Amino acid sequence: MTEPFLPNPAIAATVSPPVMEARRWLEGVLLPLDMPLINVSQAAPVDPPPVALRQAMADAALHRAEAHLYGPVLGNADLRAAVASEVSARYRGGVAPAQVAITQGCNQAFCAAVSAIATAGDQIILPTPWYFNHKMWLDMQGIGTVPLPCGGDMLPDPDMAARLIGPRCRAIVLVTPNNPTGAEYPADLVARFFDLARAHGLALILDETYRDFDSRAGAPHGLLAQPGWGDTVIQLYSFSKAYRLTGHRVGALVAAESLMVQIEKFLDTVAISTSQLGQIGALWGMENLGDWLAGERAEILARRAATVAALSTLPGWQVKSAGAYFAWVEHPFAESSADLARRMVGQVGVLALPGTMFTPPGDPGGERHMRIAFANIDRNRIAVLADRLRRLSA
Amino acid sequence: MTEPFLPNPAIAATVSPPVMEARRWLEGVLLPLDMPLINVSQAAPVDPPPVALRQAMADAALHRAEAHLYGPVLGNADLRAAVASEVSARYRGGVAPAQVAITQGCNQAFCAAVSAIATAGDQIILPTPWYFNHKMWLDMQGIGTVPLPCGGDMLPDPDMAARLIGPRCRAIVLVTPNNPTGAEYPADLVARFFDLARAHGLALILDETYRDFDSRAGAPHGLLAQPGWGDTVIQLYSFSKAYRLTGHRVGALVAAESLMVQIEKFLDTVAISTSQLGQIGALWGMENLGDWLAGERAEILARRAATVAALSTLPGWQVKSAGAYFAWVEHPFAESSADLARRMVGQVGVLALPGTMFTPPGDPGGERHMRIAFANIDRNRIAVLADRLRRLSA
Repeated sequence: MTEPFLPNPAIAATVSPPVMEARRWLEGVLLPLDMPLINVSQAAPVDPPPVALRQAMADAALHRAEAHLYGPVLGNADLRAAVASEVSARYRGGVAPAQVAITQGCNQAFCAAVSAIATAGDQIILPTPWYFNHKMWLDMQGIGTVPLPCGGDMLPDPDMAARLIGPRCRAIVLVTPNNPTGAEYPADLVARFFDLARAHGLALILDETYRDFDSRAGAPHGLLAQPGWGDTVIQLYSFSKAYRLTGHRVGALVAAESLMVQIEKFLDTVAISTSQLGQIGALWGMENLGDWLAGERAEILARRAATVAALSTLPGWQVKSAGAYFAWVEHPFAESSADLARRMVGQVGVLALPGTMFTPPGDPGGERHMRIAFANIDRNRIAVLADRLRRLSA
Repeated sequence: MTEPFLPNPAIAATVSPPVMEARRWLEGVLLPLDMPLINVSQAAPVDPPPVALRQAMADAALHRAEAHLYGPVLGNADLRAAVASEVSARYRGGVAPAQVAITQGCNQAFCAAVSAIATAGDQIILPTPWYFNHKMWLDMQGIGTVPLPCGGDMLPDPDMAARLIGPRCRAIVLVTPNNPTGAEYPADLVARFFDLARAHGLALILDETYRDFDSRAGAPHGLLAQPGWGDTVIQLYSFSKAYRLTGHRVGALVAAESLMVQIEKFLDTVAISTSQLGQIGALWGMENLGDWLAGERAEILARRAATVAALSTLPGWQVKSAGAYFAWVEHPFAESSADLARRMVGQVGVLALPGTMFTPPGDPGGERHMRIAFANIDRNRIAVLADRLRRLSA
């Protein structure tokens, strides 16, 4: 007798990575020479970090033995201290190094946060449209996702969230600035979710991957200045976007020190430790690239303005929100965004992710919208993007 | 009303990382100048990779843009191809690049393998003593661990395993050469587990992290030469030990291409991709460090022989098995290994992990044994280690 093993039904029912699927749409597509692909699908830098940072990492690879060896599970002490100091200053709060964990990217920080507080059969509230990797992790962990539909301003409503909290609910997740919509959640809105979570003994998981490109001056919210914030808040951050370190996988998680006992277990089994060179690069970036990052932010904000202006000229299209790397745009066609996205590749050489990748099946919001990750194209290309979209047939 | 969130009970019930706990035993300990610590606790290189490999990684950091950017979720094409080719040659089997995934270390490969095939409420058979990170992942996933006690030769018995297979059993895990015992499982024993797993539709997860230090010539088993091996086998590998890349987190998983769909989902959410510099280093090592690795293996095998010889002179101690980086040693004291391990630090300056870290609570085998990770100490230090253990009071 011989029979193959079967996959875990929970993972089998999880969708495949959308970004990988979108890449496969490009296979076999032929585009005219004068219409090279405009790729606004992935939210990631396409250029390497500044040469000085690369040099610092190269020097470490060559001369620092510890750059090649295991580090502490929760991250290197110097990087944890730098993050604690930076977060304390930015949010005018009190965050200690022992309240910081370093992870192999911010996706892993989310996985660690969820696994530290929820188990199969529990529920977590995600505003929709959601970031698909969040949904995927909840699915494969057997944790129920409770969708919280955003309003027309792409903001979630705490009162609606309150009505969705059931006995197995363990957390509310907010992504601000948001992926996929770009919406920057107002500080008082975040505060209302904090109060709601605190009143119900829930965790409030704040994914602030894109915080370095927030258009607002000062602290984007005041939660880390609240006494006992660690009873409620788990904050996530990524070094990938700010310092162009996507290939090194470095993120951070800020939470109560008491939770770090659980986070350490998760990271030990999944990671053991984060890449040493990645941590060295992240710390070097924090210490040396402040001015450079300010310039990057200014450029991204200028691209946001250019994108909003250019797309606003398109008949029937509507920019619902924009920020960080993204614009969330309503399209004027009868078809679902899932079909439109594939048609855009072949017809006008534009790769963007359809709203359906960020919403529950059949959600009309998903079908009517596209995510345009504008951060990687300069203002000239943004104008070309708008021209291409204008040429799409109905 | 305000109440803090509570941790996931499954992760709260999981033990903390043993290696981190053992490090904490060193805090506040004072040792005489002529008795510096002998650390035989962790199974990891303490020296960096050869300078030529460090130079190759430094060059890539400086000159190759893609070394800093996202790669494919399942790993870089060149490294997957190299692993497929190497595994096919070593095991005289047929493994294609599409049957290889690159992971952020071999621990993550184990997590991916388990999550691809088992869900909360399922069961997996682990021979005891087990590798604690395996047990930790199963615990936090809500998967039941069925212990399969090894015999006096530290080998698991397929007939005993057959009696432990229940309706929710999904896999059997074998680690060979074994952590913590060092036992090299004979090819025919591995084949019997393969037949057993295949007959019951189970996965056979083979963790071969230490295969580069196996004392045997030729293929350590013939499973990958079996037709349809992918219906049963998931093989795990680590680049950390062979090329001293622990700080970069690079491992590999070999499985049926059909399972890669599920593996890709897991890796996308937990990792997105493996460190590019780590992958570049691993490939460079495979292509250039064959002779160097053969020398490393010879040195480790010599240390194994020296360890077995030295410990065999100790009254009342007994080496039960040895291989890879480890000796599994029965101690002569009345106390549990957990107490002995802490006493060894203070009394004779030796840090080793107690057997209790590798066994279920109350397991007499765990209490009677210590794991000695001899790979990091040269033959002179091995002699000193034996002298120190001889001085332990009863």
